[in-house]
Order: sequence, then C-alpha cells, then structure tokens
Amino acid sequence: MNKVITLNSRPVGKPQLSDFKFEEVEMPQMKDGEVLLKTKFVSVDPYLRGRMSDAKSYVPPFELQKAMSSGVVAEVTESKNDQFKVGDFVSGSLEWKELQSVNPEHLTKVDDQIAPLSNYLGILGMTGLTAYLGLTEIGKPQKGETILVSGAAGAVGSVVGQIGKILGCRVVGIAGTDEKVEFLKSEFGYDDAINYNTTENMTKAIAEACPNGVDVYYDNVGGDISDAAHTNINRFGRVIVCGAISTYNETEVPTGPRVEGFLIKKSVLMQGFIVSNYAEKFPEAVKQLAQWLAEGKLKSSETIVEGFDQIPQAFIDLFSGKNTGKMIVKI
Amino acid sequence: MNKVITLNSRPVGKPQLSDFKFEEVEMPQMKDGEVLLKTKFVSVDPYLRGRMSDAKSYVPPFELQKAMSSGVVAEVTESKNDQFKVGDFVSGSLEWKELQSVNPEHLTKVDDQIAPLSNYLGILGMTGLTAYLGLTEIGKPQKGETILVSGAAGAVGSVVGQIGKILGCRVVGIAGTDEKVEFLKSEFGYDDAINYNTTENMTKAIAEACPNGVDVYYDNVGGDISDAAHTNINRFGRVIVCGAISTYNETEVPTGPRVEGFLIKKSVLMQGFIVSNYAEKFPEAVKQLAQWLAEGKLKSSETIVEGFDQIPQAFIDLFSGKNTGKMIVKI
Repeated sequence: MNKVITLNSRPVGKPQLSDFKFEEVEMPQMKDGEVLLKTKFVSVDPYLRGRMSDAKSYVPPFELQKAMSSGVVAEVTESKNDQFKVGDFVSGSLEWKELQSVNPEHLTKVDDQIAPLSNYLGILGMTGLTAYLGLTEIGKPQKGETILVSGAAGAVGSVVGQIGKILGCRVVGIAGTDEKVEFLKSEFGYDDAINYNTTENMTKAIAEACPNGVDVYYDNVGGDISDAAHTNINRFGRVIVCGAISTYNETEVPTGPRVEGFLIKKSVLMQGFIVSNYAEKFPEAVKQLAQWLAEGKLKSSETIVEGFDQIPQAFIDLFSGKNTGKMIVKI
Repeated sequence: MNKVITLNSRPVGKPQLSDFKFEEVEMPQMKDGEVLLKTKFVSVDPYLRGRMSDAKSYVPPFELQKAMSSGVVAEVTESKNDQFKVGDFVSGSLEWKELQSVNPEHLTKVDDQIAPLSNYLGILGMTGLTAYLGLTEIGKPQKGETILVSGAAGAVGSVVGQIGKILGCRVVGIAGTDEKVEFLKSEFGYDDAINYNTTENMTKAIAEACPNGVDVYYDNVGGDISDAAHTNINRFGRVIVCGAISTYNETEVPTGPRVEGFLIKKSVLMQGFIVSNYAEKFPEAVKQLAQWLAEGKLKSSETIVEGFDQIPQAFIDLFSGKNTGKMIVKI
C-alpha cells in the first residue's frame, strides 16, 4: 500500500498534528506520458500555513481530506514518458505521498552530481530564489549599505545574509536563540546578530548593530520585530515583505503601529514579495546561486528530519524556530 | 511696521490658534543681491503639522518663536538683484511675513499672464506636482485600471482624479461631505465617489464603487479609510502613501491592522511619496500640467481665504476638511 498525508482539519491558531491525517491508499495507476515517482525529500515551508486556511490568497487553499503538497524531490521509478527515464531525479510541487504517478511537464530534472538532492529544495530551489530575487529585485542593495534580516537563521534568511555579504553590504541578522546568533556570525558571515528572545529593547539593539541605519530590511517575520526594524530604517529604505511567520497563527487580524508615518517621512518602499512572480528570472538566478555555491561563496544550511511520518511535525516545528536554515524531510 | 506669524507653542493634538503668535517687527533691511518681497498668496498644507512638532522628519521642525514658512507667491517691490525687477512675481518657500527681503536664488519667477498667481501654489505648484508625480512615478496607472483616491476633494486629490481620467482610468474618490462627493463627480470627472462620514461599511462601499478592485490607491488620509481601501486592493496593486492627515493630530502612535498580510498575499507595493525627491522632473511635469490646464482638460480648484491674519485659521481648517481643492490665503 501507498501512504499519503491529507489535510484533516483547518487549523485554528497553531497547527496541530491532528490537523493532518495519515492514510493508506492504493498504488497509483500510471497513464501514458506519466512517470512513477518515489518521494526522496519533502520541503516544509511557513507559507503552507496560509494554504491550510480557507482564505483567498495568491495560491488556492488546500482542500479538506485531500493530499497536502509542497516542494518535493523524487526519483523516477517507472516511466511512460520519453523525456524521463528510470533513475532520473526531479523537483517540483508534488503531493505528500510516498509514491505518485504524474505528468512531469511541470517538473524540473535535477542532478545529484552537481549538488546534494536536498539543495534543490533549499539553496538551489525556492529558498535560494526567494532570497536572491527578493533582495536584488526589491531591495536593490548598493555596496556599503546595511541590510537587516529578520528570521535570519531560517531557510531564506540564512541565504539573504550571505548574498548581502557577496554584494558588499553590512549584514545584521535577527534570530531567536544564542546558538543561532553565533551560527549567523560564524557560518553565514553576518557582521552582527541579535537574539530577540533575550533583548529587551529591540529598537535600541538594532540601532547599535546598524550604526548607519538600515537601508534594506528583508522581513520574514513581521510583528514587533518589524516595528523595531521600521523605526531604524533610513531615508529611501526598502522593505522586502517576504514573510510574516510571527502572525500566521493569529486568529484575529494582527494590529500594530501604522506604517504610513515612516513611509512618508523617510520615502520608504515596502513591497510584498512572492517568488513565483519572478519565474522568468529563475534560470539566470539558479545559475548565479549554483556558481556561488561551487565557488564556496555560498553555503547551504539545512535541518534534515528523517521519515515520511515526520512531515507534519517538521512543519509545526517551523513556528517554534526548531530549524536552522532550510527544514527538509528525508524519506 | 511689518507683520509676522511665529510658532508660539508646539501643538498637542489638533493645532490651536494659540499655537501661533502675531508679532510686529521692524521693516526688513535689504542686502546686496536681495529682493524685497510683498506677500500676495500663502499656501497652507497638512504637512506643516509635522514641522510644528519636534520630531525628526524629512524637513527640520519649525523653531519656537521663529517665523512659520510655507509656499508663498510674492511681488518684488524693490530689487538689489539684476535678475529680478520691481513688479516681478515669484514663488517659493518663504516666511509668513507681509514683507521680507531675501536672496532669490531658490525662488521661481511666475507669470500672471499664463495662469492666476494662486495657481502657482496649487495646480501648477507643489499640489499639482504631488498629484502628477505621485500618480505617475509610483502608481504607474495603466489605461483601464481603477484608481481610488482618499482626500479626493482636497488639494492633491482633486488633481489626482482629473489626471487619472486623462490617463484613461476609472477613478473613484473618497470625501467627507455630500457636497464634495457631488463636486468630485460634476467638476473633477470622478466616475464615482463615497462620503465616508455617512457610509457605514467603507470596505463594502469601495468594493461596489470599484467592481474590478483597486489597482492604484492614492492615499492622502491614512487611518480607517485606508484599511478599507487596502482590503479592496488588487494583486500587484500600488499604494502611493502621500499623506495621513487623519493621524497627524494623534498624540499616541496610531495603530491599525498590520499591512504585511495583504502586501504579501497580493504582491502589493506601498511607497511613501515626497514631491521634493523628484525635483529633477519638475520642469517637465509643470509643462505637462500647464498644457492640460490650457487645453481645459484640467481644472484648478481653490478655496481662497482673505487676510494675513487668517493664515493660522485656514491651516487649522484643513483638519476639518473646510477646503475643497487647494487652501490658499490671499493677502
């Protein structure tokens, strides 16, 4: 039998294991043109929380009692498609199933000789693209400017900081444990980092870590941390609004200081970023990321959890920051 | 003797007449290179409220017991400068004085044969430039898109709507009285308009007036009205944050729904706009505005109050929306 994870109920507040259901289903029947895929790595990402709710967004919500899906790397184990042969690896948006038969037209072949397969869900996948394209297309950092990153030890944040350094900027990160803060500085080249859980006055701490102010704020978390970041933003600053994980589990509309004041006073740009809007730039961006990775200028950071059964828990753990770098489940 | 209006005290909340002081000072002494100016028209603008507080902003605060200043059109009555002769009219940032002697290097000559002098403080001055450059540089409206304007009957808003129509958009305005709503439609070509003072559910009213959603939101007011506007914004929408008059007199940091959610979900851009950032585009923009004005495509709308003594009250009246179009004091 084949295993699948479905959406059992829409979470209220923080997602629970009971919001997911493990089911056994029949083995997939292959059609002409399809490939049979064995799941190797599954990506869990904060944005999936939005799809578990029944709210209108840029991607439709998951359906109740239907399979969950996310970024997956899989191996072709049977093929009825000339373009794909047994033993090929592919990445793409796939269901949380051990085995599935699909038409591979939206899948991308990936090569485990170039990089470890999990990298295609991280630094060479959506994560790396989000970091690179958000920073360069909206943030447009200039050499010598200061970039502040929230969720800096997370999947996207750990890459943003490294790219900021490659581009010649001062890079300051915000994370939730002392270990992460140390890791940001020792592994990812952050010039400075702040532990928001042990810092009383974030506004002051950011001001001290960013003596020339903040030119680019790459925001993955929203909430109070962003309020403190906004206070330190420079004239003509750019805020890349990439994520707001601190608010994803709130059941009421989150409120906070209105932004219009600092946007006007400092001529600041704030823009919501969704990586799929920049699809035509993916090939060039992946090429650049792969080159930096090969040159050793960029390091991949992954937290890998093992076991198909662990996918829901790995997802839930994102909200308590259990991961450093990209959270991936190895099957 | 010469009259001057100084800042007597920094307002707490809504400005009061007692925050200003009328003084009599000696007649100005002219230096070489200066011109003696007689004030003809004085512009009062919401942004001056910010300068009356002691907070850091894009322009320094007014100093206590020193003259207030704003956009002024004046007549040269004596000249010790070869470039300016008696009878010339100039516009620029000048003090609230009946007479003043200044070096005219930052002043612009204006011609009362091309347009009434007050227009150089309105549609051909900062107001028109703010409307045109904010809309085109940040809003970038495409033909057929919907533009929503708050403070639509105000100085900037009344021009934004007209330019939106020239550019082939659907234009919907928000104002505070039925008279203004009618005026928006009959005089400024707005396709529809909403009275926020008599509308219970602004979110629904905007949705009805903008059946295709809001592509560009030109925001002059902030606060609750903007919350309703944000709810109706389309994917890839642009929010020009030009003013937040609804919050200028608040003594606490104004709070409201956080914006990160809709910015991300809809890939929206929100940008603070200050007209002076676009100074290099002024000549071209004024030329375009003057051409539309001459062709009758653009109408000037001004509320003119008479008397030097009336400047503070005219300014205070901005916050209760007593003006339609540009508020100007004629001396």
